[in-house]
Amino acid sequence: MYSFESDYLEGACPEVLDKLIETNLLQTPGYGVDSWCEKAAQKIRETIGRQDCDVHFITGGTPANVLAICLLKPYEAVICAESGHINVHETGAVEATGHKILAVPGKDGKISADSIRKVCEQHTDEHMVKPKMVFLSNATEYGTVYTRKELEEIRKACTENGLYLYLDGARIANALCAQGNDLTLAKIAELADLFYIGGTKNGALLGEAMVINHPDLKPDFRYLIKQHCSMLAKGRIIGVQFFRLFEDGLYLKNADNANRMAQKLKKILTENGFRMYIDSPTNQIFPILDNSLIEKLREDYGFLTWAKYDEDKTVIRLVCSWATKEEAVREFGEKLAAYIKEK
Amino acid sequence: MYSFESDYLEGACPEVLDKLIETNLLQTPGYGVDSWCEKAAQKIRETIGRQDCDVHFITGGTPANVLAICLLKPYEAVICAESGHINVHETGAVEATGHKILAVPGKDGKISADSIRKVCEQHTDEHMVKPKMVFLSNATEYGTVYTRKELEEIRKACTENGLYLYLDGARIANALCAQGNDLTLAKIAELADLFYIGGTKNGALLGEAMVINHPDLKPDFRYLIKQHCSMLAKGRIIGVQFFRLFEDGLYLKNADNANRMAQKLKKILTENGFRMYIDSPTNQIFPILDNSLIEKLREDYGFLTWAKYDEDKTVIRLVCSWATKEEAVREFGEKLAAYIKEK
Amino acid sequence: MYSFESDYLEGACPEVLDKLIETNLLQTPGYGVDSWCEKAAQKIRETIGRQDCDVHFITGGTPANVLAICLLKPYEAVICAESGHINVHETGAVEATGHKILAVPGKDGKISADSIRKVCEQHTDEHMVKPKMVFLSNATEYGTVYTRKELEEIRKACTENGLYLYLDGARIANALCAQGNDLTLAKIAELADLFYIGGTKNGALLGEAMVINHPDLKPDFRYLIKQHCSMLAKGRIIGVQFFRLFEDGLYLKNADNANRMAQKLKKILTENGFRMYIDSPTNQIFPILDNSLIEKLREDYGFLTWAKYDEDKTVIRLVCSWATKEEAVREFGEKLAAYIKEK
Amino acid sequence: MYSFESDYLEGACPEVLDKLIETNLLQTPGYGVDSWCEKAAQKIRETIGRQDCDVHFITGGTPANVLAICLLKPYEAVICAESGHINVHETGAVEATGHKILAVPGKDGKISADSIRKVCEQHTDEHMVKPKMVFLSNATEYGTVYTRKELEEIRKACTENGLYLYLDGARIANALCAQGNDLTLAKIAELADLFYIGGTKNGALLGEAMVINHPDLKPDFRYLIKQHCSMLAKGRIIGVQFFRLFEDGLYLKNADNANRMAQKLKKILTENGFRMYIDSPTNQIFPILDNSLIEKLREDYGFLTWAKYDEDKTVIRLVCSWATKEEAVREFGEKLAAYIKEK
Repeated sequence: MYSFESDYLEGACPEVLDKLIETNLLQTPGYGVDSWCEKAAQKIRETIGRQDCDVHFITGGTPANVLAICLLKPYEAVICAESGHINVHETGAVEATGHKILAVPGKDGKISADSIRKVCEQHTDEHMVKPKMVFLSNATEYGTVYTRKELEEIRKACTENGLYLYLDGARIANALCAQGNDLTLAKIAELADLFYIGGTKNGALLGEAMVINHPDLKPDFRYLIKQHCSMLAKGRIIGVQFFRLFEDGLYLKNADNANRMAQKLKKILTENGFRMYIDSPTNQIFPILDNSLIEKLREDYGFLTWAKYDEDKTVIRLVCSWATKEEAVREFGEKLAAYIKEK
Repeated sequence: MYSFESDYLEGACPEVLDKLIETNLLQTPGYGVDSWCEKAAQKIRETIGRQDCDVHFITGGTPANVLAICLLKPYEAVICAESGHINVHETGAVEATGHKILAVPGKDGKISADSIRKVCEQHTDEHMVKPKMVFLSNATEYGTVYTRKELEEIRKACTENGLYLYLDGARIANALCAQGNDLTLAKIAELADLFYIGGTKNGALLGEAMVINHPDLKPDFRYLIKQHCSMLAKGRIIGVQFFRLFEDGLYLKNADNANRMAQKLKKILTENGFRMYIDSPTNQIFPILDNSLIEKLREDYGFLTWAKYDEDKTVIRLVCSWATKEEAVREFGEKLAAYIKEK
Repeated sequence: MYSFESDYLEGACPEVLDKLIETNLLQTPGYGVDSWCEKAAQKIRETIGRQDCDVHFITGGTPANVLAICLLKPYEAVICAESGHINVHETGAVEATGHKILAVPGKDGKISADSIRKVCEQHTDEHMVKPKMVFLSNATEYGTVYTRKELEEIRKACTENGLYLYLDGARIANALCAQGNDLTLAKIAELADLFYIGGTKNGALLGEAMVINHPDLKPDFRYLIKQHCSMLAKGRIIGVQFFRLFEDGLYLKNADNANRMAQKLKKILTENGFRMYIDSPTNQIFPILDNSLIEKLREDYGFLTWAKYDEDKTVIRLVCSWATKEEAVREFGEKLAAYIKEK
Repeated sequence: MYSFESDYLEGACPEVLDKLIETNLLQTPGYGVDSWCEKAAQKIRETIGRQDCDVHFITGGTPANVLAICLLKPYEAVICAESGHINVHETGAVEATGHKILAVPGKDGKISADSIRKVCEQHTDEHMVKPKMVFLSNATEYGTVYTRKELEEIRKACTENGLYLYLDGARIANALCAQGNDLTLAKIAELADLFYIGGTKNGALLGEAMVINHPDLKPDFRYLIKQHCSMLAKGRIIGVQFFRLFEDGLYLKNADNANRMAQKLKKILTENGFRMYIDSPTNQIFPILDNSLIEKLREDYGFLTWAKYDEDKTVIRLVCSWATKEEAVREFGEKLAAYIKEK
């Protein structure tokens, strides 16, 4: 039984685990003010190519999103695509801090500059919330990625309307490694007021790195981390992991493996005549399969059912990670071929 | 340079780390519904000696406290000692969820049944919040422990006034191992409606185990964990650690080492003529030292300044952990003796 | 200059004002526990025909909605039509108490049983909020009214899914007086778990009456009123007003005048060849007018622009109230005719 | 039966009621942007002697306090005396918006500059909330008033520590009229960053006027008013009342009557040998009476029991208002004398 259910099924990637083992008995101050966190932050600043950003380590993606959004004033709201993680899959964590989410229709998980402008036009007075931030994820919840042009246009719409741009980078490395991607971490850091670089889904046990560029958003951020349950006593365990991830390109190497394995799965499926529901270039793919085939596959594989396609067909999600091996993909191809033949 | 600053200076204890390494590449479902979390919960239920409690794994102590208290209705309040962690050192995390803390004077960090009753008498109508929960920590923030009689009386005061009793067990193992302690985990589980067993300060990288006994507090607790940023995608890493901690008494062994080392430090200090500010039987001690001596000690040791005692003397805090070695304690004694001699 | 901008442009209706004057110097206890509030509550219970409901007086409509929804647990959400007042025009007041609004497409401001069921089907686990209440307004924000059959089906969908049904009755009297209405206050009280009867828009200076039927929602409601800024020291001024409104059918008389005047306006407009954007049988009408005509009307009348219809036409909103006089309506007709003639 | 229970037992003072009657049928825009609110704001600015402040009308005292404090960032806290209204009698309304109250011991309801400094010294890092505002009430909850010197020292402590100074003026007019007072509204406006002028307890049906001086606190305040349930659709009814109260000194006249009547009661009681628990120069007095006498008085008078003094004596509270008549006070004196004689 092998699972393609998600990219957080295993623990840490070997290099990260080794670093945790190596540093395990060192004594460091608590709560993320240790030298490993500082060294990791420095590595991230170097990768981005700017020194003027604050870097904080957070326990997970939902806390990172909550922290970014609770920088807003109580009546300020965040705009996102209807499929945005904060709108659907965070149990109202954003609203729990008092902020409204203004969800707009997206395309393949992406929000457009025009839909942002439209929301701003509609929110005109104090009887309505005041839009003040745009949330987007790259790669998106559907595995798609933003082009440089799209992100620049969104930035423009934000600037026109006095909005902060926040990017959820749970799978940012997968976006950066995707075929056709024309964004860099440096470019993202230039366009976004703040964003996070995901660790959990790219080889860490846990942890995300929040990068804050806009000077108004920097002060007192550690107060918010602590207040919102996202500061670890042994904060160094996130610092150590990010230090290692950014040491020799491991961060991109992990994501690249995840993407390549997923794209191989896609190729196998396409060659067997199956279509994709969404055309994702990253580590999540969404094939449309016959229900009978899905039943067969379930005997050997774990994966999520994504959506009903029609009476006979269903969309499933297959996800690869740093841990996915070539042989697992090859074996999947063989079993698939066998199932089809049987039929 | 050696630090007695806290009990979260190192990573995981070796046994726990080994278990993390051993299980690292296994595939498990995310978000704490894996078999390791279930097995760890089962070990805890066995240790407590009851099967009817829910066990959840949380990222840290502040989140655990926040989650317990946000089980209350918006106008319901929690009573605690003025020195309570939630009242002082959690950046208003409890108030951030909308609940008032009713802080009452304590004695050596402990709250009394009478002070609970007094608060309830004073809160009589809808112009005031409604007391509904008592928070206490054992061991307390001052390292002291509750006796069985004290806890039973507090339970009585809670029952009389319709209050839930919640126990913060960040250092519950240190309490259980303390000389003079007459409580057991089973007894605590009988008296408290919910409590958490601390992992972070007792050998885990991170993580606490919330035990819920009162049936009214059980439903939908996972919704709160997720909403309050305290659920890990790779939830199994807390389950694995607690499984190991409760496998063969490791949990108590770790705390016992911490207590014994601290008590040795205390003995050394006492023999050298120093008094304790608070008489703690656990892993935190609070000697009153001459300012000049403190300056000397700072050259070789890390520790917290706790309070000014008088013009010449200051109270410091020394903390030991599972990682503190005999030689570190012995060396501290030797250095102390040398300093005194010098003078 | 005469305004049809809303139904809260004047102070109190004369009968209500007289009662305020008459009772002005009486001494009563504060905060809504006086005899006038109790007598008003009793009148409402008699009108509804049931004694087992709690009645509370609240300062306004937004507070009433907030109070109803913050009866939910933190992770529980409220379903409403996208056009729902809570979703659009309350500056995120509901989210400010921590609750997510699940907005679904409506038809003419109305929500359907099927859309409720669909939301419930989609919210299946603790990664999403838990739907627990349905919000609807009757009359709706578009002036439309629910039929008995529609409300019974919504009730059924609520019962099937364990949802509370909450009805915002800011204009409930207008709904009850509308032509074609087949609901009664008694029937509404039977179907809704809680609802409020609007005072502000039907002849009072301020104030709404919250009626709570479901026993689980009754306890401690006054704590919430106080905590959410909605309790007046001189609470009796709302009680006095509702007492008078429910004394001799004044409540329906006021609404009936508002509806009749609006329908006369509609008739005038229709006879002059204009169409309605939404066919509302209550005190708000939404004619589609030529932009040039609107400009003309603006010289003599106040009203809201509702929506752009096409390049040449715009939807406006005209609202009547208890205070609207026949002659104002007649005059409007005359001026309209004159404008058209001119052209 | 006559009641001295509070200063909000009657409706509006006659002059205010007349103005409400006079303006009742005028059509005005809703939500506090009408000409009456603007004219009332202008009158207040003139009284204060500065044009650079924003004035907003709020439904009541608890909402005013909540709105002032929710200008803070989530982790910022407000310092107040333990007896402060926000700390005791607002059902946790401040905490419900997420902010911690740092309560310090006061003297006769007053907070001192030194206690403010001490709190700031103790709150040093991100594990604790960040003190950012001082709340005080003048007159206090005990009827006492601040001297100019005291308020200037508090201002100094605020400036030193980067704190906003907020003054709850529910009974500010009583403070200004008190014998020995050396503050003016202009001086208060100079020292406080924001404060409110109470209407409810000084002749209005409801309503308070928030005055904001600090430029950082002005933007978007109406968003907060709306979001926190404190904006009336018929907002003009508060504007009208404040306009009248500030038209010809009525505001001070009302308070002066309240103070004088209370001080007459005090004189009567003192002449009969009774002592005061707190020496208040305003409209609340706190005599220490024999329990048997209190029982007698209860037959003819309403008043609050304030505190147990000893086995035989109790402190009660007597409050006068704009509505208290000389004859009521004289009669109280006569009955008191009779009771004493009887005994």
